[in-house]
Amino acid sequence: MMNGVRSESCPAALPFVRGVFRGAKVMSIDAARGYSREKGEAFIEQLTEFLRIPSLSGTPERAGDVAAAADWLAENMRGAGVAQVAVMPTAGHPVVYGEWLGAGPDKPTVLVYGHYDVVPASKEDGWDTEPFEPVISDGKIWARGATDDKGQLLTHVKALESYLKSGNEPPVNVKFLMEGEEEVSSPNLRPFIEEHLDLLAADVCIISDSSMRTIDEPAITYSLRGMTYIEVTVEGPHDDLHSGFYGGTVHNPALALVQLLSKMFDDQNRIAVPGFYDDVVAISDRERAEIAKSELSERDILDATGVPAVWGEADVTIRERVSARPTLEINGITSGWGGPGPKTIIPANAKAKISSRLVANQDPHRIYDQLKDFFESNAPETVKVTVELLTTGEPALVSFELPEMQAAKRAYEIGWGATPIFVRGGGSIPIVADILHLLDMPVVMMGFGLDTDGLHGTNEHFSLEMFQRGIETSIVFLDEIARL
Amino acid sequence: MMNGVRSESCPAALPFVRGVFRGAKVMSIDAARGYSREKGEAFIEQLTEFLRIPSLSGTPERAGDVAAAADWLAENMRGAGVAQVAVMPTAGHPVVYGEWLGAGPDKPTVLVYGHYDVVPASKEDGWDTEPFEPVISDGKIWARGATDDKGQLLTHVKALESYLKSGNEPPVNVKFLMEGEEEVSSPNLRPFIEEHLDLLAADVCIISDSSMRTIDEPAITYSLRGMTYIEVTVEGPHDDLHSGFYGGTVHNPALALVQLLSKMFDDQNRIAVPGFYDDVVAISDRERAEIAKSELSERDILDATGVPAVWGEADVTIRERVSARPTLEINGITSGWGGPGPKTIIPANAKAKISSRLVANQDPHRIYDQLKDFFESNAPETVKVTVELLTTGEPALVSFELPEMQAAKRAYEIGWGATPIFVRGGGSIPIVADILHLLDMPVVMMGFGLDTDGLHGTNEHFSLEMFQRGIETSIVFLDEIARL
Repeated sequence: MMNGVRSESCPAALPFVRGVFRGAKVMSIDAARGYSREKGEAFIEQLTEFLRIPSLSGTPERAGDVAAAADWLAENMRGAGVAQVAVMPTAGHPVVYGEWLGAGPDKPTVLVYGHYDVVPASKEDGWDTEPFEPVISDGKIWARGATDDKGQLLTHVKALESYLKSGNEPPVNVKFLMEGEEEVSSPNLRPFIEEHLDLLAADVCIISDSSMRTIDEPAITYSLRGMTYIEVTVEGPHDDLHSGFYGGTVHNPALALVQLLSKMFDDQNRIAVPGFYDDVVAISDRERAEIAKSELSERDILDATGVPAVWGEADVTIRERVSARPTLEINGITSGWGGPGPKTIIPANAKAKISSRLVANQDPHRIYDQLKDFFESNAPETVKVTVELLTTGEPALVSFELPEMQAAKRAYEIGWGATPIFVRGGGSIPIVADILHLLDMPVVMMGFGLDTDGLHGTNEHFSLEMFQRGIETSIVFLDEIARL
Repeated sequence: MMNGVRSESCPAALPFVRGVFRGAKVMSIDAARGYSREKGEAFIEQLTEFLRIPSLSGTPERAGDVAAAADWLAENMRGAGVAQVAVMPTAGHPVVYGEWLGAGPDKPTVLVYGHYDVVPASKEDGWDTEPFEPVISDGKIWARGATDDKGQLLTHVKALESYLKSGNEPPVNVKFLMEGEEEVSSPNLRPFIEEHLDLLAADVCIISDSSMRTIDEPAITYSLRGMTYIEVTVEGPHDDLHSGFYGGTVHNPALALVQLLSKMFDDQNRIAVPGFYDDVVAISDRERAEIAKSELSERDILDATGVPAVWGEADVTIRERVSARPTLEINGITSGWGGPGPKTIIPANAKAKISSRLVANQDPHRIYDQLKDFFESNAPETVKVTVELLTTGEPALVSFELPEMQAAKRAYEIGWGATPIFVRGGGSIPIVADILHLLDMPVVMMGFGLDTDGLHGTNEHFSLEMFQRGIETSIVFLDEIARL
């Protein structure tokens, strides 16, 4: 247990910057912000090093690289002045924990969560550059993990460093919880938290693993979607069959699968699984007003994706569709011959990976039961249909009227230079629900990325300007929390 | 041009076996059949050698192996006593041509067609043995190409050899047309035939590239299905998207594809493409009576495939479904993530390989137009749908009342030991239509395989007893043709 360990390197000899009058505070912040700008090049070099490590948490043969990324991060945190840093084992990839508690027990403590693991990427997927050979061009750094989440998590380490290395005592205590399994749904983080409730105790948790629409429209995420991820398998003949001999006599498993999957939506593009929407919390008028502040338009979706027309649930605006409504998406289908040219088989089986993004208060396991029942009850007797649960995550909802949320709003106004809007996030960070409920503290999701950063796709990148603004926003946030 | 080249090794000094009375004929046949039995082990060894060559015509890096198989076959034919043999180049893989014209111009000429190329196979697909390391067990030889078509084509080479090497002049002239591109739809055989009409001139063509239900129910195929093979591509976003950011706002291409494909059949499992059945020749009462002789049952389909229940067009018997009706099968679907575990993307695109088996008188190109129109007209405006033609083949229908067909029937009765039924073949040998129409001769399809031989699937095999019976049936057939 590392809780309460006081830093030996705490600059206790600089009490004058802790003055009670506003002027001194601003100076302390300004000095830290100035330091972060002076060191901007060095911070980018460090991020480049970090991105070079292919820390693919879902690829067993990359376990060594995941460990290397954990070690790199721990070393970087030590270099930043974080007093106590430990790479702590889990049943999977390690947690990098760090703390600087020099502000003392009378000051609030901020817990920073981030993840140093990434999803797979290879140049063959269509990247313009090698995903693990970071390139800087057009004011951006291009690499897998640039925005999700190595670049974003590093802003907070560099924010603390900027206080400490500019000779200014940070106004609050800071703890870091950096995991290496977010991209595989954090199977070991919940047990880790349960075992280390005291170590991780804090007043507020901050997470930067989300994004905004444009640099001038920063966003604070007050809601995240949960997830139920399943695989549906249709099995027909015990082997691929010659389509000339058996065509027309057995139910082609690929056909049976498409027939099943085609029933998932009604003609209004609503999810047709019975009971699916039962537990969805209705959007309040206040929320609807906040959502309406987003300038996201159908044109933005068209421009960002290149699709010929948008699609979605009838009678729901595009701004609500992207985050406030649950989804059901086919993530992949595999059946039969996918190589070049023709092959005249009836495939032995067909598989689909399907995931549903959930909103409060949908229960991932109840949704799994509904999906399983839906596919099984619609399965024809001519094939065998099985439904397997791959992973789940709880949705999360935090009131944007909490003081910590309003502190984050001011941090953007001062540090970023623009008033943020409160948004529901479309993505899932399952651990947010665990932090909310197990550690009983508000979670503030201050994203520093752009919706168009290409995370999980090709040519992922992170704006260097937003990296810098993120560091400064974090510097201000720590101060705003101290004032509450 | 090799037409009319007379064999220098023609055993012209053995006229006595060409006597006009029945007894001498029978003796000649008996001697040849006896020889084939004596040499049975050697023939199996030769087949084993042949099967060891991975002559995958659709795999560019296997071109050398395809050429090696052509050379092996040419050499084997020379060893069998075929007077003239040549490996003749095409724009693709070579044709192995051979002729023995020692019976003289007054005697009929039989053209034997076969193919020495095979479809892909690897142990990882689920084979019990290595597909290109033939194994003999349970009275069968197990290897890719065992039944389709290396084992079957070799029966005719060994039949001719059995006449020649037992000191009996064959009763007819024999030509061999062995191609290396049947499994990629014979793109260069039609031009080859058009350029060599004289070389290939004959009175009847025999092809053994089909099968029977059981060893006691041999079958002569009088109809083959044609084919239209297409690829349907649905394109949505220009790149895979994060399902949390864009889920519910763009039409998932995998969903759009399954919605399109689910419209292919109506609720009676009839193909719902407008005009699809327009040109199908109705089954006559005589044909229906012949088809009814087949003992194929739904139980046979269940046993052979392992499916929980049969499937197919309402109001059509299983015996007619397997061959006399056109089909529409999904041969493969590829979209998004197919690896282990979850990946939360919206795939950029989704592709399906789809093929239709056609019956007389459906026109493959007209069917392509109908399919293309069907998919394009059903495509939603939210995605881009394209339909590409991969290959076509004409259906073929030969009256079973022709004398050559009846000669084949007697050949089975004498050589195989069972009366054959005339069947419509479910598969496609597109070149049959070309031989019928370009060379203007009847095509007799005498299959020596079993429906359950696993061709195009895993654990392909060929019964050694059927290999021997095939050789003897071919020996008798040559004699029966001489008697017409």
